[in-house]
Amino acid sequence: MDLQRIVDETWEALADQRGSGTPARYIPALELVDPRQFGIAMATRDGPVYCAGDADVPFSIQSVSKVFALALALEREGPALWDVVGREPSGNPFNSILQLEREKGVPRNPFINAGAIVTTDRFIGDRSPEVAIDDLLARLRLMARDEGVTIDTEVARSESQTGSRNRSLAYFLADFGRLLNPVEDVLSVYFRQCSLAMSCRQLAESALFLPFDGTDPVSGVTMCSPSRARRINALMLLCGHYDNSGQFAFEVGFPGKSGVGGGILASVPGRASIAVWSPGLNRAGTSLLGAKALSDIALRTGWSVFSGKLPEI
Amino acid sequence: MDLQRIVDETWEALADQRGSGTPARYIPALELVDPRQFGIAMATRDGPVYCAGDADVPFSIQSVSKVFALALALEREGPALWDVVGREPSGNPFNSILQLEREKGVPRNPFINAGAIVTTDRFIGDRSPEVAIDDLLARLRLMARDEGVTIDTEVARSESQTGSRNRSLAYFLADFGRLLNPVEDVLSVYFRQCSLAMSCRQLAESALFLPFDGTDPVSGVTMCSPSRARRINALMLLCGHYDNSGQFAFEVGFPGKSGVGGGILASVPGRASIAVWSPGLNRAGTSLLGAKALSDIALRTGWSVFSGKLPEI
Amino acid sequence: MDLQRIVDETWEALADQRGSGTPARYIPALELVDPRQFGIAMATRDGPVYCAGDADVPFSIQSVSKVFALALALEREGPALWDVVGREPSGNPFNSILQLEREKGVPRNPFINAGAIVTTDRFIGDRSPEVAIDDLLARLRLMARDEGVTIDTEVARSESQTGSRNRSLAYFLADFGRLLNPVEDVLSVYFRQCSLAMSCRQLAESALFLPFDGTDPVSGVTMCSPSRARRINALMLLCGHYDNSGQFAFEVGFPGKSGVGGGILASVPGRASIAVWSPGLNRAGTSLLGAKALSDIALRTGWSVFSGKLPEI
Amino acid sequence: MDLQRIVDETWEALADQRGSGTPARYIPALELVDPRQFGIAMATRDGPVYCAGDADVPFSIQSVSKVFALALALEREGPALWDVVGREPSGNPFNSILQLEREKGVPRNPFINAGAIVTTDRFIGDRSPEVAIDDLLARLRLMARDEGVTIDTEVARSESQTGSRNRSLAYFLADFGRLLNPVEDVLSVYFRQCSLAMSCRQLAESALFLPFDGTDPVSGVTMCSPSRARRINALMLLCGHYDNSGQFAFEVGFPGKSGVGGGILASVPGRASIAVWSPGLNRAGTSLLGAKALSDIALRTGWSVFSGKLPEI
Repeated sequence: MDLQRIVDETWEALADQRGSGTPARYIPALELVDPRQFGIAMATRDGPVYCAGDADVPFSIQSVSKVFALALALEREGPALWDVVGREPSGNPFNSILQLEREKGVPRNPFINAGAIVTTDRFIGDRSPEVAIDDLLARLRLMARDEGVTIDTEVARSESQTGSRNRSLAYFLADFGRLLNPVEDVLSVYFRQCSLAMSCRQLAESALFLPFDGTDPVSGVTMCSPSRARRINALMLLCGHYDNSGQFAFEVGFPGKSGVGGGILASVPGRASIAVWSPGLNRAGTSLLGAKALSDIALRTGWSVFSGKLPEI
Repeated sequence: MDLQRIVDETWEALADQRGSGTPARYIPALELVDPRQFGIAMATRDGPVYCAGDADVPFSIQSVSKVFALALALEREGPALWDVVGREPSGNPFNSILQLEREKGVPRNPFINAGAIVTTDRFIGDRSPEVAIDDLLARLRLMARDEGVTIDTEVARSESQTGSRNRSLAYFLADFGRLLNPVEDVLSVYFRQCSLAMSCRQLAESALFLPFDGTDPVSGVTMCSPSRARRINALMLLCGHYDNSGQFAFEVGFPGKSGVGGGILASVPGRASIAVWSPGLNRAGTSLLGAKALSDIALRTGWSVFSGKLPEI
Repeated sequence: MDLQRIVDETWEALADQRGSGTPARYIPALELVDPRQFGIAMATRDGPVYCAGDADVPFSIQSVSKVFALALALEREGPALWDVVGREPSGNPFNSILQLEREKGVPRNPFINAGAIVTTDRFIGDRSPEVAIDDLLARLRLMARDEGVTIDTEVARSESQTGSRNRSLAYFLADFGRLLNPVEDVLSVYFRQCSLAMSCRQLAESALFLPFDGTDPVSGVTMCSPSRARRINALMLLCGHYDNSGQFAFEVGFPGKSGVGGGILASVPGRASIAVWSPGLNRAGTSLLGAKALSDIALRTGWSVFSGKLPEI
Repeated sequence: MDLQRIVDETWEALADQRGSGTPARYIPALELVDPRQFGIAMATRDGPVYCAGDADVPFSIQSVSKVFALALALEREGPALWDVVGREPSGNPFNSILQLEREKGVPRNPFINAGAIVTTDRFIGDRSPEVAIDDLLARLRLMARDEGVTIDTEVARSESQTGSRNRSLAYFLADFGRLLNPVEDVLSVYFRQCSLAMSCRQLAESALFLPFDGTDPVSGVTMCSPSRARRINALMLLCGHYDNSGQFAFEVGFPGKSGVGGGILASVPGRASIAVWSPGLNRAGTSLLGAKALSDIALRTGWSVFSGKLPEI
């Protein structure tokens, strides 16, 4: 398969729709992003990253960061992480507090906000917020093979200022005794983690460990064990799009995690990691063009974890 | 891979645990089944079905039947089915009515009981209950290539007598105007569908369409389109075990659907359909030994939709 | 106080608004009632019943019947009734099933539908549905001192035909083992009880036991103990209007129970029982004009259980 | 009636049970209170306050303060207060966040914690927290005719330190845009208001406006209009004990508001205000001995807003 051509054709087929959907508006820094931007990057075991459009423009990865935070929290905490966060779809929106009350402060999974806050707390562990953030950045730069991965401090400050709902969730967790660190420390890392600025290319490269059993097949760097990579893929498929995960699994057919900044990171086991980005969101808060692009790539490549066709090598 | 050996070794590794778990006790017919029975059957594109243990003993397939009902309802109704039933995980137990009230009588997915009742109603369509049941039986016999598939009328009668919760769900749906047929007609089909008696071998054979894009690769008989087969696989993976689907996706790694009779039907895309059966259930209502057997087979074969290892052919 | 004049003035002040609000439309028999009818009847210890407007026109009392059913179920069952039905406001609409699931089939109070169904079941006890209905009618005729109290069998039939939600609630209760009698038997009494046809005059007279500690001060007939009369008054105040009880307590200031047929029965402890009727309902399902009339009477008489002014005798 | 004797007899009848129930333990300052203390104070229009036991020992009034905050917020804000807080029973525990999410951040009533936080915010209005607290203290000292009313700053500090759940509720409200002031400002007043230290005598005296239409009949000082006093009484009866309000209305028969410090303030319209205190709580978080004392007083006096017996003057 000519993957560069598939990426190009997908981009071109959708280019006319650039600007559709509604960008997130809850913080000025996101609102100001040019909504007509649209990038695709696909990384495979073969080395080159197949890119199209604005694949080198950094954007706010937001909830996509939860995937990396999960991998790193599992590394620090091991299976004990599952004592404080579940692994089941929630059946509720990403910022819901309903289930959290009924289930005594144990969030359903690491991808809803409450679960991500607990995950970040465990990633911090007994370190200071600054040390934890430095560690996160260092790991992402290593995986992306790019020192350009940064945190957008303007976005982080805005997130903190407008973060009443996340603050409410965090204090709720604290009330149930689920946090090791003070709420404001956890949030200071959480808001910065969500404010990571990365391009599609950086994102696709840094996530190559997901479709390849935990080890980047190009650099040989290991992020996690094969079993953990499979676990994260499973969680992405089942819970990566909150209340819209079924629809996504349906239309795309492989694991993905969306962010409100318009990015989506997808993992095609044994094949590729794909990052797409376009700021306009659909009703479920997922990039409208991004989801279409992944669906289109799935069609063109025939990649689907649910398909009976044996993939060509 | 020597699949017969894998099936045998899996069976033997777990044989000592036969009788563990708690069989369903809500109707006498299920309670009387010998809890030490344990069968495995794996069907592949190659023709022979690899069996072990009680693979030829018929058992009550219960909720496993929802998979077939879904395929057949989609055939009759097309995408309009999705107007009355959703495709998202529910985050609630199989018989919960909570979400149904909040979401105006549209069940979350076709595998929770309310969703299965709606699905059965659409499968009946404008036919009589008897015609619908005959159609269902004929289709299953065709797919299983075995005229021995029957309905256990004793189980069906017990289901109807003790079915207050399902009756409540059905009247709830009727109150929201979601049913085409009278409640008692729908239930009479639903209870009989759940009372289908099939062996692991019959089940595995009749479900070969799932891992192979809708068409049984041995008989060449088509049950549904490739796209619908992928959809059903996706729903099985995301919602096939109710509130325990995440855990199952985690441990087994491919789509499955469990029944309270102790059967589990699994679909390994491109590889095999597998039916396991042992009456003792775990807390989530899934066969304890059955889930272990599938997990064991996944380990021995390396089959997982989340794994990066390219499967050997 | 000249109570006849107060009743007349209240009626006249609101007469122009006859026909406002929306009559219940879920069954033909209710839809056909002339929406411009408006009656008031007030019964006191002094004997005469002060009436205005359509006070002698029988109407479908619907949920007002739950008050009598409660008194009679308490008589048969004693405090054991409280094992199967609670005494707290529900915070949910009258026909909600949400709380019922979370609270294992014990309805919050006897005035939401599920609670009323349980109450009716206990009132039936070990008798046949026909014997129970005959008993109910006999008691109401005795209390109303009027043999004209009847059941509108046309309404009862319609209720049963359209009663999917109540049927769903009843089967839900049955599933939790909360009913002594078969669901259809309980519903056959419940639907007939709701279909009692009574005039404001009959209703006010038959409820004189409520404001006077259980015994009708005119006839001397005892319906229940003083303590039970106080209990029923308390439940009416706290739960008599479902999710609108706070608003009613606020605006009217004494216990009341509304029905979807447009009737409201109020009890002013130590003073009077008042029945008002007008078919048009407000958003909360309470008679629009009826609630205004009671609020007006409260203002004109100064009657309020929350007021510090000692009532003149 | 010899009210002093009734108060004395009630105290004596229960004295043996002092120390029963479980004192609140979530902050050290409450845990350290001697659990065997038990006081009663009853204030009437006649001037003297009838006291028994530890009626002059100040205790932390906690949620009882919500009654005063409501009166003062209504004074500042008028009926516009009801745009941001409801007047219906919640059907949920005092600190539940469930309903708040479903109802878009409008708390059910001013007595659940979320509703009290909104009420305090409106009481603060455009003033600084310090000015608001000074105002609250001045008003309570005026109503209690006692300059000894103070805030226990040790309790206030502990409340703030352990107040994660209230902080979560407040940020949740802020997220829905329901607060005028910064969360920490609102909480600083809220925690101090809950930490008011008052004796039964002070509490009974300062609440005399409730049973007497808004104006203290002894001092002649007006706290609010007759209509508002009735409203507050209604809210106390319907919502004063959270999920246990029905039970309290049942057993006691007049409006009351409990606090986790073991105090209960009751209002008997036209008769008296009564404050009782004993630290041990029942399961519902209401003073065990306090509730018994009020029930006992109700029995001895015959006072009940649901009784048909005309009170003697």
